[in-house]
Amino acid sequence: LVSVLSSAIIVYRLPWTWNCSKLLMKFIHAGLNTIAMILAIVSMVAVFEYHNARNIPNMYSLHSWIGLTAVIFYSLQLFLGFAVFLLPFAPVPLRAALMPIHVYSGLTVFATVIATALMGITEKLIFSLKNPAYSASPPEATFVNCLGLLLVIFGALILWMASRSHWKRPPEENAKVLQPIGGTPEGTEAESTMTDGSNADKSDLRISSEAARKQNFKLDEAGQRSTM
Amino acid sequence: LVSVLSSAIIVYRLPWTWNCSKLLMKFIHAGLNTIAMILAIVSMVAVFEYHNARNIPNMYSLHSWIGLTAVIFYSLQLFLGFAVFLLPFAPVPLRAALMPIHVYSGLTVFATVIATALMGITEKLIFSLKNPAYSASPPEATFVNCLGLLLVIFGALILWMASRSHWKRPPEENAKVLQPIGGTPEGTEAESTMTDGSNADKSDLRISSEAARKQNFKLDEAGQRSTM
Repeated sequence: LVSVLSSAIIVYRLPWTWNCSKLLMKFIHAGLNTIAMILAIVSMVAVFEYHNARNIPNMYSLHSWIGLTAVIFYSLQLFLGFAVFLLPFAPVPLRAALMPIHVYSGLTVFATVIATALMGITEKLIFSLKNPAYSASPPEATFVNCLGLLLVIFGALILWMASRSHWKRPPEENAKVLQPIGGTPEGTEAESTMTDGSNADKSDLRISSEAARKQNFKLDEAGQRSTM
Repeated sequence: LVSVLSSAIIVYRLPWTWNCSKLLMKFIHAGLNTIAMILAIVSMVAVFEYHNARNIPNMYSLHSWIGLTAVIFYSLQLFLGFAVFLLPFAPVPLRAALMPIHVYSGLTVFATVIATALMGITEKLIFSLKNPAYSASPPEATFVNCLGLLLVIFGALILWMASRSHWKRPPEENAKVLQPIGGTPEGTEAESTMTDGSNADKSDLRISSEAARKQNFKLDEAGQRSTM
């Protein structure tokens, strides 16, 4: 689940995908997230059935509360992402306004999923290791602790990749041709789907290039729809 | 600890602090982080003494491993931040190059501290609640679960505030005067200490305004040193 989620997050940052069309990238991003959602649902059903079979109460732990919250927000994220960014009905200003929120909530859900996994590992080690106990540090405990530490390092690496703007997918070709209209090189940045929200938010500082950017945005959008 | 850490993170984003000098802001940021570091050390000593008094082994759990990793990285962050950004010896290009790393690792340590706290809460609830057990959901368990959920919401809120560029401290006054040299309004953004790294990284796209920005940077820096 975590690996599919991270693939979905960093797909826009992989240089070998930069030659794919933006629409194909969006489909890969949406597809990977759908697979992750299916995996999350399957694993939740498995947990509930395991609990019921062993007469363990459901949803009592902090791990389960935060995990369920993450899954609810993730399904909301998936639904809104599909409706706004994949279907061709949402107007461009709405997409631009929602993109920073989409990016932020995606990364926050990812971090929350890792925190949930760490709590789950802690619970499992405490409940499963009895003789010798977890506190006696048997090899299994040390091994799983290492896995947990690697999970944190992995998550930190993904968040680093996702937040670096020089690993961002370069703007589309047609946007590059239109660049001189904008006057500044900044005009091209608004096209990339995966932004850290800084461009959309700084609009008060960049009113002069607003109109040119919007024009680029619309033309890029039109170019994208023609590939559908 | 978490509240002092978060105050240190968002101090640059609080509008009522925007009239303070950048140097005063840096001192507040460094001071709050030093307080958080002292609290972290005090609490670690308390944990070790508690374990030793009760004959509980130290450093066996994933919570302790990740917690110690976070504290080590945090002390490194504090030391480097002090040496590079507070002492007046580091050259401006080094500061500019290290700032995105400083911001990223600060926020990552903050998220890791929250994950560690959640694991600690999970452990404590499992070990302390015996009759009725944690799985029977006594009121105490529900209450502490709610606290854990609030901790996640609080952390997400802090990360939202820290990553929004329109909540960023506006550039210094002397930089505003120099703005026309840059040609574009972007020239002023490099001055703010708390960036999300996007400006420093996009330099390949903005070579034209590079020289002007550097000049602003140096003059701003000089202005700042004169207040020391």
